[in-house]
Amino acid sequence: MGGFKELTPVQKAVELLRAHVVHRPGKRRVSIEEALGKYLAEDVVSPFNIPPVERAVVDGYAVRSSDTFGASPTSPAILRVKGFLRAGEEPRFSVLPGEAVEVATGAQLPPGADAVVMYERTRRVGELLEVMEAVPPYGNVGRVGEDVREGEVVLRRGTRLMPWDIAVLASMGLSAVEVYELRAAVLNVGSELVELGQLDPSEAARRGLVINSNRYSISALLSLYGFSPRYLGIVPDDEREIAKAISRALQEHDAVITVGGASVGRADLTVKAVRELGAELVIHGVLLRPGRANSAAVVNGKPVFMLAGFPVAAIVGFEALAKPVLLSMVGGEEEPKAVVKGILTRRVTTPINVRSYVRVRVYEEGGRLYVEPLALTGSGVLSTLVRGNGILLVPEDREGYDEGDEVEVILLRQPSKSP
Amino acid sequence: MGGFKELTPVQKAVELLRAHVVHRPGKRRVSIEEALGKYLAEDVVSPFNIPPVERAVVDGYAVRSSDTFGASPTSPAILRVKGFLRAGEEPRFSVLPGEAVEVATGAQLPPGADAVVMYERTRRVGELLEVMEAVPPYGNVGRVGEDVREGEVVLRRGTRLMPWDIAVLASMGLSAVEVYELRAAVLNVGSELVELGQLDPSEAARRGLVINSNRYSISALLSLYGFSPRYLGIVPDDEREIAKAISRALQEHDAVITVGGASVGRADLTVKAVRELGAELVIHGVLLRPGRANSAAVVNGKPVFMLAGFPVAAIVGFEALAKPVLLSMVGGEEEPKAVVKGILTRRVTTPINVRSYVRVRVYEEGGRLYVEPLALTGSGVLSTLVRGNGILLVPEDREGYDEGDEVEVILLRQPSKSP
Repeated sequence: MGGFKELTPVQKAVELLRAHVVHRPGKRRVSIEEALGKYLAEDVVSPFNIPPVERAVVDGYAVRSSDTFGASPTSPAILRVKGFLRAGEEPRFSVLPGEAVEVATGAQLPPGADAVVMYERTRRVGELLEVMEAVPPYGNVGRVGEDVREGEVVLRRGTRLMPWDIAVLASMGLSAVEVYELRAAVLNVGSELVELGQLDPSEAARRGLVINSNRYSISALLSLYGFSPRYLGIVPDDEREIAKAISRALQEHDAVITVGGASVGRADLTVKAVRELGAELVIHGVLLRPGRANSAAVVNGKPVFMLAGFPVAAIVGFEALAKPVLLSMVGGEEEPKAVVKGILTRRVTTPINVRSYVRVRVYEEGGRLYVEPLALTGSGVLSTLVRGNGILLVPEDREGYDEGDEVEVILLRQPSKSP
Repeated sequence: MGGFKELTPVQKAVELLRAHVVHRPGKRRVSIEEALGKYLAEDVVSPFNIPPVERAVVDGYAVRSSDTFGASPTSPAILRVKGFLRAGEEPRFSVLPGEAVEVATGAQLPPGADAVVMYERTRRVGELLEVMEAVPPYGNVGRVGEDVREGEVVLRRGTRLMPWDIAVLASMGLSAVEVYELRAAVLNVGSELVELGQLDPSEAARRGLVINSNRYSISALLSLYGFSPRYLGIVPDDEREIAKAISRALQEHDAVITVGGASVGRADLTVKAVRELGAELVIHGVLLRPGRANSAAVVNGKPVFMLAGFPVAAIVGFEALAKPVLLSMVGGEEEPKAVVKGILTRRVTTPINVRSYVRVRVYEEGGRLYVEPLALTGSGVLSTLVRGNGILLVPEDREGYDEGDEVEVILLRQPSKSP
């Protein structure tokens, strides 16, 4: 791996890429149901006051508050009940002085009334109502625009839409919204690659071939984060072919992700190919482990991520390098990560100035959490991906951690219940 | 809200429901691409050793390790290079004593060779290779089954499939897997409800009607967690109608979720309806805030969740009551939550013995995190759903927290950068 001249720190690479990526993805108007997990491409403004009418927020009686002033258990206000209003009924009564209307929670306040007295503060005898306590104006009333005022920005551009946001959109009467559709092409580079299903894996291996598993992890990561992946196939180890494929992919997509063909041993074909296309910026290798071969470029204002072919290096490269840039293209931000502290069971040594992602298995024992490093080297080890349930991120300014250190781990799944 | 006789603690409700829900959802064979975010319905066993052949894990020369024993810079082993093997090539050489084959990372080890010497430890002069250092047997070699052994369980039933899992399935040659398809019916109860698009929201409100926004939040939550929602429409406030709708829904679905009609003020129609259907277990109200009206039952071994109609109460009821039960039906577990600590800006008072979910806004100021409680009462306030970025969960044994307390908050989005 001695062939890289200048590896870029991860954060600097992300900043450079963000500064050079001027292209913005297309917008698409989708139904709010399809919008789940997508990024808003517009500020959403409430077209109405919410609630648009005054409503009872408890079960009880709608009254004119001034009728209750001075009321007490020994000297109740006496009102006449005119009827009952449920939620969902148009108010067919108005409340005149000395009158009340029984209301269910959610019922619209009848004209004339300006407050609601709870059942518990009243005594009912036939048509007559005794109110034991004064209620102030707007007491127990949900007021117009109390929740959201007309014209108020409710959801900002770049918000990733979650279930409660969708419900808010529906409440405002919006059945569709503009979201970003970031179309990302996935290209796999490598003459050794075959598609799943073409060959039995052991037969493939005997013939020196490798099943293209990276297309699945990278496409799934893109989907998981709300982007639109499109798989474009396998390109052989040929600089011309790679350049052609990337160039074609750039025409129809907002971003291109190639996997494989980026390591020095593989002759750096992808990086050469992208240079040929007249890239405005080329980041050739990053201070990342695993994944120092991960590279990126900007061509026509669009990002091209060139991820290493080793499965774990490709995933780490996607998370560390591609995801932050793609998020900034849609105005989005990283979701909060679940982090726990645990005791490291074995020393972890990492190179200084390199951001290292160490796969770990977090387990519980005797009421404490322990962190077992799974694989310190070897980025092609698929099984650690499924055995592990966390990531120990070692920042650039550290050379690892000692056995027994308390470390913070990003949890991908719940800790195991046993060592 | 005085009408509930016995409210059940949330954890007890979940345990009772889990014990009574004997129905298991159907399984479906799906392509691995469709399997993202679904729960495995089978243990997945590796059909092969991975890797199935020995491979070079560095760039260098494949050798017979015994040829290098005793080698040193001053007394190198001299070998004859027979050719070059890339990853993806079938080995067309064998390595006899005194011979070496140049190999790229990932290349299959040629017959006869049992180790790889890195470039850095060699000097090449034409066909001749000087090896400066001994390499042990299997040095720099990825061994057969090193990653996964044939017959080993790689992914367990109930695992929620993430991108890296999908890649592991592909590597094992599996293009499809069995996943659970938990079909959940969503029914909204309430004569005041209208569908989005039927009426302008302010017109609806003037007529005392409410846009059915809960169908969207609940369906989206189900999708988000990998279940299959099916919306069945609005049922009026009529016990017979509700019973009929639930009964019909139970026939074709693994779980039924009703929203609305569950509060005391609304005459408990849904709970009455489900009792009429001969429920094996009825939980009528839980010690949860907001959402004490949330109820649940088990009918024919299937869960029926009866969520309160207030938007936030419905979401809290789904998260606290429905989600854990649905997860156990597919053998799944809660995903780890992002939790941060921050300083509470205002006292929060909650009732003892009740699990309270307080919506909060977490913000950064002067390098510290602060937690601002958004709405202490009123579960119908949609805007706090979008203004908030976290949940302060107050457990049953506390009556809240004081201003200035350090509290743990579940983060739904990144903290705001300003107060």
